[in-house]
Amino acid sequence: MKILIAKTAGFCFGVKRAIKMAYRAASSTQSGKKIYTLGPLIHNPQVVKELEKSGVLVADSLNDIDEGPLIIRSHGVTSSEMENAKAKKLKVIDATCPFVKKAQEYVRFLSQEGYHVVIVGEKAHPEVKGLVSYAVDKYVTVATCSGDIDTLPKTKKVGIVVQTTQPLSNLQSVVSFLIDKIEEVRVFNTICSATSIRQKEAVELAAKADCMIVVGGYNSANTNRLAEICREILKNTHHIEVADEIRVKWLNGVNRVAVTGGASTPPWIMEAVCEKVKELGVIKKC
Amino acid sequence: MKILIAKTAGFCFGVKRAIKMAYRAASSTQSGKKIYTLGPLIHNPQVVKELEKSGVLVADSLNDIDEGPLIIRSHGVTSSEMENAKAKKLKVIDATCPFVKKAQEYVRFLSQEGYHVVIVGEKAHPEVKGLVSYAVDKYVTVATCSGDIDTLPKTKKVGIVVQTTQPLSNLQSVVSFLIDKIEEVRVFNTICSATSIRQKEAVELAAKADCMIVVGGYNSANTNRLAEICREILKNTHHIEVADEIRVKWLNGVNRVAVTGGASTPPWIMEAVCEKVKELGVIKKC
Repeated sequence: MKILIAKTAGFCFGVKRAIKMAYRAASSTQSGKKIYTLGPLIHNPQVVKELEKSGVLVADSLNDIDEGPLIIRSHGVTSSEMENAKAKKLKVIDATCPFVKKAQEYVRFLSQEGYHVVIVGEKAHPEVKGLVSYAVDKYVTVATCSGDIDTLPKTKKVGIVVQTTQPLSNLQSVVSFLIDKIEEVRVFNTICSATSIRQKEAVELAAKADCMIVVGGYNSANTNRLAEICREILKNTHHIEVADEIRVKWLNGVNRVAVTGGASTPPWIMEAVCEKVKELGVIKKC
Repeated sequence: MKILIAKTAGFCFGVKRAIKMAYRAASSTQSGKKIYTLGPLIHNPQVVKELEKSGVLVADSLNDIDEGPLIIRSHGVTSSEMENAKAKKLKVIDATCPFVKKAQEYVRFLSQEGYHVVIVGEKAHPEVKGLVSYAVDKYVTVATCSGDIDTLPKTKKVGIVVQTTQPLSNLQSVVSFLIDKIEEVRVFNTICSATSIRQKEAVELAAKADCMIVVGGYNSANTNRLAEICREILKNTHHIEVADEIRVKWLNGVNRVAVTGGASTPPWIMEAVCEKVKELGVIKKC
Protein backbone atom coordinates (compact mmCIF):
# COMPACT_ATOMS: atom_id res chain seq x y z
CA MET A 1 0.00 0.00 0.00
CA LYS A 2 1.37 3.41 -1.01
CA ILE A 3 0.82 6.61 0.99
CA LEU A 4 0.57 9.88 -0.92
CA ILE A 5 1.07 12.91 1.29
CA ALA A 6 -0.05 16.35 0.15
CA LYS A 7 2.89 18.73 -0.13
CA THR A 8 0.68 21.71 0.72
CA ALA A 9 -0.97 20.15 3.80
CA GLY A 10 -0.65 21.74 7.22
CA PHE A 11 -0.07 25.15 8.76
CA CYS A 12 -0.52 28.14 6.49
CA PHE A 13 1.36 31.40 6.91
CA GLY A 14 -1.30 33.05 9.10
CA VAL A 15 -1.62 30.05 11.43
CA LYS A 16 2.15 29.63 11.80
CA ARG A 17 2.42 33.33 12.63
CA ALA A 18 -0.40 33.22 15.21
CA ILE A 19 1.09 30.18 17.00
CA LYS A 20 4.54 31.79 17.04
CA MET A 21 3.07 34.97 18.54
CA ALA A 22 1.19 32.96 21.17
CA TYR A 23 4.26 31.01 22.29
CA ARG A 24 6.34 34.19 22.27
CA ALA A 25 3.74 35.87 24.49
CA ALA A 26 3.72 32.84 26.78
CA SER A 27 7.49 32.85 27.17
CA SER A 28 7.68 36.58 27.85
CA THR A 29 4.79 36.62 30.34
CA GLN A 30 5.43 36.28 34.03
CA SER A 31 5.16 32.65 35.13
CA GLY A 32 1.69 31.78 36.47
CA LYS A 33 0.04 34.73 34.74
CA LYS A 34 -2.67 33.82 32.26
CA ILE A 35 -2.83 34.80 28.61
CA TYR A 36 -6.15 34.74 26.77
CA THR A 37 -7.43 34.33 23.27
CA LEU A 38 -10.98 35.44 22.47
CA GLY A 39 -12.29 32.24 20.89
CA PRO A 40 -9.74 29.60 19.87
CA LEU A 41 -6.48 30.98 18.39
CA ILE A 42 -6.88 28.61 15.42
CA HIS A 43 -9.49 25.98 14.52
CA ASN A 44 -7.58 22.96 15.80
CA PRO A 45 -8.58 21.66 19.25
CA GLN A 46 -5.34 19.68 19.70
CA VAL A 47 -3.13 22.72 19.12
CA VAL A 48 -5.37 24.82 21.38
CA LYS A 49 -4.99 22.18 24.11
CA GLU A 50 -1.20 22.25 23.73
CA LEU A 51 -1.26 26.03 24.05
CA GLU A 52 -3.25 25.74 27.28
CA LYS A 53 -0.30 23.88 28.81
CA SER A 54 1.77 27.02 28.20
CA GLY A 55 -0.86 29.22 29.86
CA VAL A 56 -2.68 30.41 26.74
CA LEU A 57 -6.39 30.01 27.61
CA VAL A 58 -9.53 30.41 25.49
CA ALA A 59 -12.12 32.92 26.72
CA ASP A 60 -15.60 32.97 25.19
CA SER A 61 -16.22 36.61 25.99
CA LEU A 62 -14.32 39.73 27.00
CA ASN A 63 -16.30 39.63 30.27
CA ASP A 64 -14.25 36.57 31.24
CA ILE A 65 -10.99 38.49 30.96
CA ASP A 66 -9.94 40.95 33.63
CA GLU A 67 -6.35 41.31 32.70
CA GLY A 68 -4.39 40.35 29.63
CA PRO A 69 -2.47 39.93 27.57
CA LEU A 70 -5.19 39.18 25.05
CA ILE A 71 -4.17 37.51 21.81
CA ILE A 72 -6.51 38.17 18.89
CA ARG A 73 -7.03 34.88 17.07
CA SER A 74 -6.01 34.24 13.45
CA HIS A 75 -9.60 34.62 12.14
CA GLY A 76 -9.89 38.08 13.69
CA VAL A 77 -12.61 39.47 15.96
CA THR A 78 -15.33 42.07 15.49
CA SER A 79 -14.46 45.76 15.50
CA SER A 80 -16.45 46.28 18.71
CA GLU A 81 -14.62 43.43 20.46
CA MET A 82 -11.35 45.07 19.46
CA GLU A 83 -12.53 48.46 20.76
CA ASN A 84 -13.84 46.95 24.00
CA ALA A 85 -10.53 45.17 24.60
CA LYS A 86 -8.74 48.48 24.20
CA ALA A 87 -11.27 50.25 26.43
CA LYS A 88 -10.55 47.62 29.09
CA LYS A 89 -6.87 48.56 28.68
CA LEU A 90 -5.89 44.97 28.00
CA LYS A 91 -2.53 44.44 26.33
CA VAL A 92 -3.64 43.32 22.88
CA ILE A 93 -1.44 41.09 20.73
CA ASP A 94 -3.01 41.04 17.29
CA ALA A 95 -2.48 37.63 15.65
CA THR A 96 -5.20 38.21 13.06
CA CYS A 97 -3.95 36.69 9.80
CA PRO A 98 -2.66 39.61 7.67
CA PHE A 99 -4.84 38.38 4.79
CA VAL A 100 -7.95 38.53 7.01
CA LYS A 101 -6.84 41.98 8.23
CA LYS A 102 -6.64 43.13 4.62
CA ALA A 103 -10.17 41.82 3.96
CA GLN A 104 -11.41 43.72 7.06
CA GLU A 105 -9.79 46.89 5.74
CA TYR A 106 -11.45 46.43 2.33
CA VAL A 107 -14.88 46.02 3.99
CA ARG A 108 -14.34 49.22 5.95
CA PHE A 109 -13.07 51.10 2.89
CA LEU A 110 -15.94 50.01 0.62
CA SER A 111 -18.49 50.79 3.27
CA GLN A 112 -17.05 54.26 3.89
CA GLU A 113 -17.10 54.89 0.13
CA GLY A 114 -20.86 54.24 0.08
CA TYR A 115 -20.88 50.73 -1.37
CA HIS A 116 -23.33 48.12 -0.15
CA VAL A 117 -20.91 45.40 0.93
CA VAL A 118 -21.46 41.76 -0.03
CA ILE A 119 -19.27 39.26 1.78
CA VAL A 120 -18.92 35.90 0.07
CA GLY A 121 -18.64 33.46 2.95
CA GLU A 122 -20.32 31.53 5.76
CA LYS A 123 -22.46 33.72 8.00
CA ALA A 124 -21.66 31.78 11.17
CA HIS A 125 -17.88 31.69 10.70
CA PRO A 126 -15.91 33.94 13.08
CA GLU A 127 -13.85 35.41 10.23
CA VAL A 128 -17.08 36.49 8.48
CA LYS A 129 -18.60 37.83 11.71
CA GLY A 130 -15.46 39.92 12.06
CA LEU A 131 -15.65 41.14 8.44
CA VAL A 132 -19.33 42.10 8.78
CA SER A 133 -18.54 44.27 11.78
CA TYR A 134 -16.23 46.50 9.73
CA ALA A 135 -19.09 47.68 7.50
CA VAL A 136 -20.26 51.17 8.47
CA ASP A 137 -23.91 51.20 9.54
CA LYS A 138 -24.14 47.49 8.68
CA TYR A 139 -25.04 47.92 5.00
CA VAL A 140 -23.85 44.39 4.38
CA THR A 141 -25.08 41.08 2.98
CA VAL A 142 -23.43 37.67 3.49
CA ALA A 143 -23.82 34.96 0.83
CA THR A 144 -21.96 31.80 -0.10
CA CYS A 145 -23.50 31.72 -3.58
CA SER A 146 -25.91 33.72 -5.74
CA GLY A 147 -28.85 31.63 -4.47
CA ASP A 148 -28.35 33.13 -1.00
CA ILE A 149 -29.07 36.66 -2.22
CA ASP A 150 -32.81 37.21 -1.99
CA THR A 151 -32.98 40.94 -1.89
CA LEU A 152 -30.53 43.78 -1.93
CA PRO A 153 -31.24 47.37 -0.97
CA LYS A 154 -31.74 49.76 -3.90
CA THR A 155 -28.16 50.65 -4.69
CA LYS A 156 -26.04 51.58 -7.68
CA LYS A 157 -22.80 50.22 -6.27
CA VAL A 158 -21.85 47.01 -4.54
CA GLY A 159 -18.44 46.10 -3.12
CA ILE A 160 -17.47 42.45 -2.73
CA VAL A 161 -15.00 40.93 -0.27
CA VAL A 162 -14.44 37.18 0.25
CA GLN A 163 -13.82 35.00 3.30
CA THR A 164 -10.17 33.98 2.78
CA THR A 165 -10.92 30.24 2.63
CA GLN A 166 -13.82 30.31 0.13
CA PRO A 167 -13.60 28.47 -3.20
CA LEU A 168 -13.29 30.72 -6.26
CA SER A 169 -16.48 29.24 -7.75
CA ASN A 170 -18.58 30.80 -4.95
CA LEU A 171 -17.11 34.24 -5.67
CA GLN A 172 -17.71 33.77 -9.41
CA SER A 173 -21.34 32.77 -8.77
CA VAL A 174 -22.06 35.86 -6.67
CA VAL A 175 -20.25 38.26 -9.02
CA SER A 176 -21.96 36.87 -12.15
CA PHE A 177 -25.32 37.34 -10.45
CA LEU A 178 -24.64 40.87 -9.22
CA ILE A 179 -23.16 42.35 -12.42
CA ASP A 180 -26.53 41.66 -14.05
CA LYS A 181 -28.34 43.70 -11.39
CA ILE A 182 -26.02 46.49 -10.22
CA GLU A 183 -24.32 49.17 -12.31
CA GLU A 184 -21.00 49.11 -10.43
CA VAL A 185 -19.58 45.99 -8.84
CA ARG A 186 -16.16 46.38 -7.21
CA VAL A 187 -14.54 43.08 -6.30
CA PHE A 188 -11.62 42.56 -3.95
CA ASN A 189 -10.61 38.92 -4.28
CA THR A 190 -9.35 38.24 -0.77
CA ILE A 191 -9.23 34.46 -1.15
CA CYS A 192 -5.92 33.26 0.29
CA SER A 193 -3.90 31.53 -2.42
CA ALA A 194 -2.75 28.88 0.11
CA THR A 195 -6.39 27.69 0.25
CA SER A 196 -6.86 27.36 -3.48
CA ILE A 197 -3.47 25.67 -3.97
CA ARG A 198 -4.30 23.21 -1.18
CA GLN A 199 -7.73 22.48 -2.71
CA LYS A 200 -6.22 21.94 -6.15
CA GLU A 201 -3.65 19.46 -4.82
CA ALA A 202 -6.33 17.62 -2.78
CA VAL A 203 -8.43 17.17 -5.92
CA GLU A 204 -5.42 15.74 -7.80
CA LEU A 205 -4.63 13.33 -4.95
CA ALA A 206 -8.25 12.19 -4.56
CA ALA A 207 -8.27 11.30 -8.27
CA LYS A 208 -5.17 9.09 -7.83
CA ALA A 209 -6.08 7.41 -4.50
CA ASP A 210 -8.50 4.67 -3.35
CA CYS A 211 -8.82 6.17 0.13
CA MET A 212 -8.47 9.84 1.09
CA ILE A 213 -7.86 11.03 4.63
CA VAL A 214 -8.36 14.71 5.39
CA VAL A 215 -6.89 15.75 8.74
CA GLY A 216 -7.96 18.79 10.73
CA GLY A 217 -10.30 20.35 13.28
CA TYR A 218 -14.00 19.61 12.89
CA ASN A 219 -14.51 23.34 13.47
CA SER A 220 -12.08 24.20 10.67
CA ALA A 221 -13.97 25.57 7.64
CA ASN A 222 -11.13 25.02 5.22
CA THR A 223 -10.62 21.40 6.38
CA ASN A 224 -14.35 20.68 6.00
CA ARG A 225 -14.22 22.18 2.54
CA LEU A 226 -11.20 20.02 1.61
CA ALA A 227 -13.12 16.91 2.72
CA GLU A 228 -16.21 17.97 0.74
CA ILE A 229 -14.20 18.55 -2.44
CA CYS A 230 -12.41 15.19 -2.13
CA ARG A 231 -15.66 13.33 -1.35
CA GLU A 232 -17.12 14.59 -4.62
CA ILE A 233 -14.31 12.72 -6.40
CA LEU A 234 -13.73 9.78 -4.04
CA LYS A 235 -16.49 8.40 -1.83
CA ASN A 236 -13.93 6.69 0.42
CA THR A 237 -12.91 10.07 1.90
CA HIS A 238 -12.72 10.58 5.68
CA HIS A 239 -12.29 13.72 7.76
CA ILE A 240 -10.49 13.03 11.04
CA GLU A 241 -8.95 15.15 13.76
CA VAL A 242 -6.46 12.60 15.15
CA ALA A 243 -4.79 9.35 14.07
CA ASP A 244 -6.82 7.08 16.36
CA GLU A 245 -9.97 7.75 14.37
CA ILE A 246 -8.70 5.83 11.34
CA ARG A 247 -10.64 2.58 10.77
CA VAL A 248 -9.10 -0.56 9.22
CA LYS A 249 -12.18 -1.08 7.02
CA TRP A 250 -11.40 2.16 5.16
CA LEU A 251 -8.25 0.47 3.85
CA ASN A 252 -9.93 -2.69 2.57
CA GLY A 253 -8.84 -3.38 -1.02
CA VAL A 254 -6.96 -0.09 -1.05
CA ASN A 255 -3.67 0.33 -2.93
CA ARG A 256 -3.13 4.06 -2.50
CA VAL A 257 -4.04 6.17 0.53
CA ALA A 258 -3.74 9.94 0.18
CA VAL A 259 -3.43 12.23 3.20
CA THR A 260 -3.98 15.96 3.28
CA GLY A 261 -4.61 18.48 6.05
CA GLY A 262 -6.19 21.87 6.66
CA ALA A 263 -4.42 25.17 7.22
CA SER A 264 -4.55 24.69 11.01
CA THR A 265 -3.45 21.04 11.16
CA PRO A 266 -0.12 20.69 12.99
CA PRO A 267 2.75 18.63 11.51
CA TRP A 268 2.79 16.25 14.48
CA ILE A 269 -0.80 15.16 13.85
CA MET A 270 -0.06 14.74 10.13
CA GLU A 271 2.95 12.55 11.00
CA ALA A 272 0.94 10.47 13.49
CA VAL A 273 -1.77 9.89 10.87
CA CYS A 274 0.76 8.67 8.33
CA GLU A 275 2.34 6.34 10.90
CA LYS A 276 -1.10 4.93 11.79
CA VAL A 277 -1.95 4.35 8.12
CA LYS A 278 1.33 2.46 7.64
CA GLU A 279 0.70 0.39 10.79
CA LEU A 280 -2.87 -0.53 9.78
CA GLY A 281 -1.69 -1.28 6.25
CA VAL A 282 0.77 -3.83 7.64
CA ILE A 283 -1.87 -5.40 9.96
CA LYS A 284 -4.24 -5.69 7.03
CA LYS A 285 -1.58 -7.56 5.02
CA CYS A 286 -1.07 -10.12 7.85
CA MET B 1 -49.64 31.41 -41.41
CA LYS B 2 -49.24 33.56 -38.31
CA ILE B 3 -46.76 36.45 -38.02
CA LEU B 4 -45.29 37.19 -34.61
CA ILE B 5 -43.75 40.65 -34.41
CA ALA B 6 -41.30 41.52 -31.63
CA LYS B 7 -42.64 44.31 -29.44
CA THR B 8 -39.11 45.53 -28.70
CA ALA B 9 -37.92 45.60 -32.33
CA GLY B 10 -36.74 48.80 -33.97
CA PHE B 11 -35.20 52.11 -32.97
CA CYS B 12 -33.76 52.36 -29.49
CA PHE B 13 -33.62 55.57 -27.46
CA GLY B 14 -30.11 56.55 -28.65
CA VAL B 15 -30.90 55.96 -32.34
CA LYS B 16 -34.19 57.86 -32.16
CA ARG B 17 -32.41 60.76 -30.50
CA ALA B 18 -29.58 60.82 -33.09
CA ILE B 19 -32.02 60.80 -36.04
CA LYS B 20 -34.09 63.55 -34.47
CA MET B 21 -30.95 65.65 -33.96
CA ALA B 22 -29.86 65.08 -37.56
CA TYR B 23 -33.21 66.13 -39.06
CA ARG B 24 -33.37 69.13 -36.71
CA ALA B 25 -29.89 70.18 -37.88
CA ALA B 26 -30.95 69.71 -41.51
CA SER B 27 -34.05 71.85 -41.10
CA SER B 28 -32.18 74.64 -39.32
CA THR B 29 -29.25 74.72 -41.75
CA GLN B 30 -29.18 77.06 -44.70
CA SER B 31 -30.57 75.39 -47.81
CA GLY B 32 -27.84 73.91 -50.02
CA LYS B 33 -25.30 73.79 -47.17
CA LYS B 34 -23.98 70.35 -46.32
CA ILE B 35 -24.09 68.66 -42.94
CA TYR B 36 -21.70 65.81 -42.15
CA THR B 37 -21.54 62.79 -39.93
CA LEU B 38 -18.14 61.18 -39.28
CA GLY B 39 -18.96 57.61 -40.28
CA PRO B 40 -22.65 56.67 -40.62
CA LEU B 41 -24.99 58.27 -38.04
CA ILE B 42 -26.43 54.81 -37.26
CA HIS B 43 -25.74 51.34 -38.66
CA ASN B 44 -28.60 51.21 -41.13
CA PRO B 45 -27.74 52.00 -44.79
CA GLN B 46 -31.38 52.71 -45.74
CA VAL B 47 -31.81 55.35 -43.03
CA VAL B 48 -28.43 56.86 -43.91
CA LYS B 49 -29.53 57.08 -47.57
CA GLU B 50 -32.76 58.85 -46.53
CA LEU B 51 -30.73 61.32 -44.47
CA GLU B 52 -28.57 62.10 -47.50
CA LYS B 53 -31.69 63.38 -49.26
CA SER B 54 -31.97 65.99 -46.49
CA GLY B 55 -28.33 67.01 -46.94
CA VAL B 56 -26.80 64.90 -44.14
CA LEU B 57 -23.72 63.29 -45.74
CA VAL B 58 -21.29 60.66 -44.43
CA ALA B 59 -17.61 61.64 -44.33
CA ASP B 60 -14.96 58.97 -43.76
CA SER B 61 -12.44 61.36 -42.28
CA LEU B 62 -12.27 64.85 -40.82
CA ASN B 63 -9.99 65.74 -43.77
CA ASP B 64 -13.06 65.51 -46.00
CA ILE B 65 -14.90 68.21 -44.01
CA ASP B 66 -14.00 71.85 -44.38
CA GLU B 67 -17.05 73.34 -42.77
CA GLY B 68 -19.77 71.88 -40.63
CA PRO B 69 -22.01 71.35 -38.94
CA LEU B 70 -20.59 67.96 -37.94
CA ILE B 71 -22.95 65.50 -36.27
CA ILE B 72 -21.22 62.96 -34.02
CA ARG B 73 -22.81 59.57 -34.73
CA SER B 74 -24.69 57.53 -32.13
CA HIS B 75 -21.74 55.14 -31.55
CA GLY B 76 -19.44 58.04 -30.71
CA VAL B 77 -16.02 58.88 -32.10
CA THR B 78 -12.51 58.80 -30.66
CA SER B 79 -11.37 61.50 -28.25
CA SER B 80 -8.80 62.75 -30.79
CA GLU B 81 -11.43 63.01 -33.54
CA MET B 82 -13.54 65.07 -31.16
CA GLU B 83 -10.57 67.32 -30.33
CA ASN B 84 -9.61 67.69 -33.99
CA ALA B 85 -13.16 68.67 -34.94
CA LYS B 86 -13.07 71.35 -32.27
CA ALA B 87 -9.61 72.49 -33.42
CA LYS B 88 -11.03 72.87 -36.93
CA LYS B 89 -13.72 75.07 -35.37
CA LEU B 90 -16.51 72.96 -36.84
CA LYS B 91 -19.92 73.32 -35.25
CA VAL B 92 -20.23 69.97 -33.45
CA ILE B 93 -23.64 68.44 -32.76
CA ASP B 94 -23.01 65.52 -30.41
CA ALA B 95 -25.51 62.73 -31.12
CA THR B 96 -23.44 60.14 -29.25
CA CYS B 97 -25.90 57.86 -27.42
CA PRO B 98 -25.92 58.98 -23.75
CA PHE B 99 -25.28 55.38 -22.69
CA VAL B 100 -22.16 55.24 -24.88
CA LYS B 101 -21.10 58.62 -23.51
CA LYS B 102 -21.40 57.23 -19.98
CA ALA B 103 -19.23 54.24 -20.94
CA GLN B 104 -16.62 56.65 -22.39
CA GLU B 105 -16.62 58.58 -19.12
CA TYR B 106 -16.13 55.38 -17.11
CA VAL B 107 -13.15 54.42 -19.29
CA ARG B 108 -11.58 57.83 -18.73
CA PHE B 109 -12.30 57.73 -14.99
CA LEU B 110 -10.90 54.21 -14.48
CA SER B 111 -7.84 55.02 -16.51
CA GLN B 112 -7.16 58.22 -14.59
CA GLU B 113 -7.54 56.28 -11.33
CA GLY B 114 -4.73 53.95 -12.42
CA TYR B 115 -6.77 50.92 -13.44
CA HIS B 116 -5.79 48.84 -16.44
CA VAL B 117 -9.00 49.08 -18.48
CA VAL B 118 -10.54 46.01 -20.08
CA ILE B 119 -13.31 46.71 -22.60
CA VAL B 120 -15.64 43.80 -23.26
CA GLY B 121 -16.54 44.24 -26.92
CA GLU B 122 -15.56 43.92 -30.57
CA LYS B 123 -12.21 45.53 -31.36
CA ALA B 124 -13.25 46.70 -34.83
CA HIS B 125 -16.56 48.30 -33.80
CA PRO B 126 -16.62 52.12 -33.88
CA GLU B 127 -18.15 52.30 -30.38
CA VAL B 128 -15.24 50.25 -29.00
CA LYS B 129 -12.64 52.25 -30.94
CA GLY B 130 -14.15 55.34 -29.33
CA LEU B 131 -14.09 53.77 -25.84
CA VAL B 132 -10.44 52.70 -26.22
CA SER B 133 -9.42 56.26 -27.05
CA TYR B 134 -10.63 57.52 -23.66
CA ALA B 135 -8.07 55.43 -21.77
CA VAL B 136 -5.16 57.53 -20.60
CA ASP B 137 -1.85 56.36 -22.09
CA LYS B 138 -3.69 53.47 -23.75
CA TYR B 139 -3.44 51.01 -20.85
CA VAL B 140 -6.35 49.10 -22.31
CA THR B 141 -7.26 45.60 -23.49
CA VAL B 142 -10.28 44.68 -25.66
CA ALA B 143 -11.83 41.21 -25.37
CA THR B 144 -15.19 39.67 -26.24
CA CYS B 145 -14.61 36.71 -23.92
CA SER B 146 -12.00 35.37 -21.49
CA GLY B 147 -10.34 33.40 -24.31
CA ASP B 148 -9.31 36.68 -25.95
CA ILE B 149 -7.17 37.71 -22.99
CA ASP B 150 -3.70 36.27 -23.53
CA THR B 151 -1.65 38.51 -21.37
CA LEU B 152 -2.28 41.45 -19.13
CA PRO B 153 0.33 43.86 -17.82
CA LYS B 154 1.39 43.26 -14.20
CA THR B 155 -1.33 45.12 -12.35
CA LYS B 156 -3.24 44.93 -9.09
CA LYS B 157 -6.37 46.61 -10.38
CA VAL B 158 -8.44 46.22 -13.48
CA GLY B 159 -11.49 48.27 -14.47
CA ILE B 160 -14.08 46.80 -16.82
CA VAL B 161 -16.45 48.64 -19.17
CA VAL B 162 -18.71 46.97 -21.75
CA GLN B 163 -19.74 47.82 -25.31
CA THR B 164 -23.41 48.75 -24.84
CA THR B 165 -24.72 46.00 -27.16
CA GLN B 166 -22.74 43.04 -25.74
CA PRO B 167 -24.51 40.02 -24.28
CA LEU B 168 -24.22 39.64 -20.51
CA SER B 169 -22.59 36.21 -20.88
CA ASN B 170 -19.50 37.80 -22.48
CA LEU B 171 -19.13 40.19 -19.54
CA GLN B 172 -19.59 37.31 -17.08
CA SER B 173 -16.94 35.25 -18.88
CA VAL B 174 -14.34 38.05 -18.74
CA VAL B 175 -15.10 38.98 -15.12
CA SER B 176 -14.99 35.35 -13.91
CA PHE B 177 -11.59 34.97 -15.57
CA LEU B 178 -10.13 38.21 -14.21
CA ILE B 179 -11.26 37.89 -10.57
CA ASP B 180 -9.09 34.77 -10.40
CA LYS B 181 -6.00 36.71 -11.53
CA ILE B 182 -6.32 40.29 -10.28
CA GLU B 183 -6.78 41.49 -6.69
CA GLU B 184 -9.25 44.29 -7.52
CA VAL B 185 -11.72 44.11 -10.39
CA ARG B 186 -14.06 47.07 -10.74
CA VAL B 187 -16.93 46.46 -13.13
CA PHE B 188 -19.18 49.08 -14.71
CA ASN B 189 -21.94 47.20 -16.49
CA THR B 190 -22.65 49.59 -19.35
CA ILE B 191 -24.75 47.12 -21.35
CA CYS B 192 -27.85 48.96 -22.55
CA SER B 193 -30.95 47.31 -21.15
CA ALA B 194 -32.75 47.81 -24.50
CA THR B 195 -30.25 45.33 -26.00
CA SER B 196 -30.74 42.63 -23.40
CA ILE B 197 -34.55 43.00 -23.42
CA ARG B 198 -34.56 42.75 -27.24
CA GLN B 199 -32.32 39.65 -27.12
CA LYS B 200 -34.53 38.02 -24.51
CA GLU B 201 -37.68 38.58 -26.57
CA ALA B 202 -35.97 37.34 -29.75
CA VAL B 203 -35.02 34.10 -27.98
CA GLU B 204 -38.63 33.61 -26.84
CA LEU B 205 -39.97 34.24 -30.36
CA ALA B 206 -37.42 31.94 -32.02
CA ALA B 207 -38.55 29.16 -29.68
CA LYS B 208 -42.18 29.63 -30.78
CA ALA B 209 -41.62 30.13 -34.55
CA ASP B 210 -40.75 27.90 -37.55
CA CYS B 211 -39.06 30.78 -39.40
CA MET B 212 -37.31 33.79 -37.86
CA ILE B 213 -36.54 36.97 -39.77
CA VAL B 214 -34.11 39.44 -38.23
CA VAL B 215 -34.19 42.85 -39.90
CA GLY B 216 -31.35 45.37 -39.79
CA GLY B 217 -28.12 46.71 -41.27
CA TYR B 218 -25.45 44.13 -42.09
CA ASN B 219 -23.05 46.53 -40.37
CA SER B 220 -25.20 46.59 -37.23
CA ALA B 221 -23.51 44.63 -34.41
CA ASN B 222 -26.66 44.29 -32.34
CA THR B 223 -28.69 43.01 -35.35
CA ASN B 224 -25.97 40.47 -36.19
CA ARG B 225 -25.98 39.35 -32.57
CA LEU B 226 -29.80 38.98 -32.60
CA ALA B 227 -29.52 36.76 -35.69
CA GLU B 228 -26.76 34.67 -34.09
CA ILE B 229 -28.78 34.12 -30.91
CA CYS B 230 -31.92 33.15 -32.86
CA ARG B 231 -29.97 30.83 -35.18
CA GLU B 232 -28.73 28.89 -32.14
CA ILE B 233 -32.39 28.08 -31.39
CA LEU B 234 -33.91 27.98 -34.88
CA LYS B 235 -31.85 27.06 -37.94
CA ASN B 236 -34.42 28.67 -40.26
CA THR B 237 -33.29 32.18 -39.16
CA HIS B 238 -32.46 34.85 -41.75
CA HIS B 239 -30.83 38.27 -41.38
CA ILE B 240 -32.07 40.73 -44.02
CA GLU B 241 -31.78 44.47 -44.57
CA VAL B 242 -34.89 45.00 -46.71
CA ALA B 243 -38.15 43.19 -47.53
CA ASP B 244 -37.13 42.16 -51.06
CA GLU B 245 -34.52 39.77 -49.69
CA ILE B 246 -37.14 37.39 -48.27
CA ARG B 247 -37.25 34.08 -50.14
CA VAL B 248 -40.43 31.97 -50.57
CA LYS B 249 -38.54 28.76 -49.75
CA TRP B 250 -37.92 30.02 -46.19
CA LEU B 251 -41.69 29.80 -45.62
CA ASN B 252 -42.13 26.22 -46.86
CA GLY B 253 -44.08 24.18 -44.30
CA VAL B 254 -44.01 27.14 -41.92
CA ASN B 255 -46.92 27.94 -39.59
CA ARG B 256 -45.41 30.77 -37.58
CA VAL B 257 -43.00 33.43 -38.82
CA ALA B 258 -41.42 35.71 -36.23
CA VAL B 259 -39.94 39.09 -37.13
CA THR B 260 -37.57 41.15 -35.03
CA GLY B 261 -35.26 44.06 -35.75
CA GLY B 262 -32.10 45.73 -34.48
CA ALA B 263 -31.84 48.99 -32.57
CA SER B 264 -31.23 50.92 -35.81
CA THR B 265 -33.95 49.34 -37.94
CA PRO B 266 -36.59 51.91 -38.97
CA PRO B 267 -40.33 51.20 -38.54
CA TRP B 268 -40.99 51.55 -42.29
CA ILE B 269 -38.62 48.68 -43.10
CA MET B 270 -40.18 46.54 -40.34
CA GLU B 271 -43.66 47.23 -41.80
CA ALA B 272 -42.52 46.44 -45.36
CA VAL B 273 -41.03 43.13 -44.16
CA CYS B 274 -44.28 42.12 -42.45
CA GLU B 275 -46.26 43.02 -45.58
CA LYS B 276 -43.91 40.97 -47.75
CA VAL B 277 -44.19 37.97 -45.44
CA LYS B 278 -48.00 38.18 -45.60
CA GLU B 279 -47.90 38.48 -49.41
CA LEU B 280 -45.57 35.49 -49.84
CA GLY B 281 -47.63 33.52 -47.34
CA VAL B 282 -50.70 34.03 -49.52
CA ILE B 283 -48.81 33.14 -52.74
CA LYS B 284 -47.57 29.97 -51.07
CA LYS B 285 -51.15 28.98 -50.16
CA CYS B 286 -52.35 29.37 -53.79
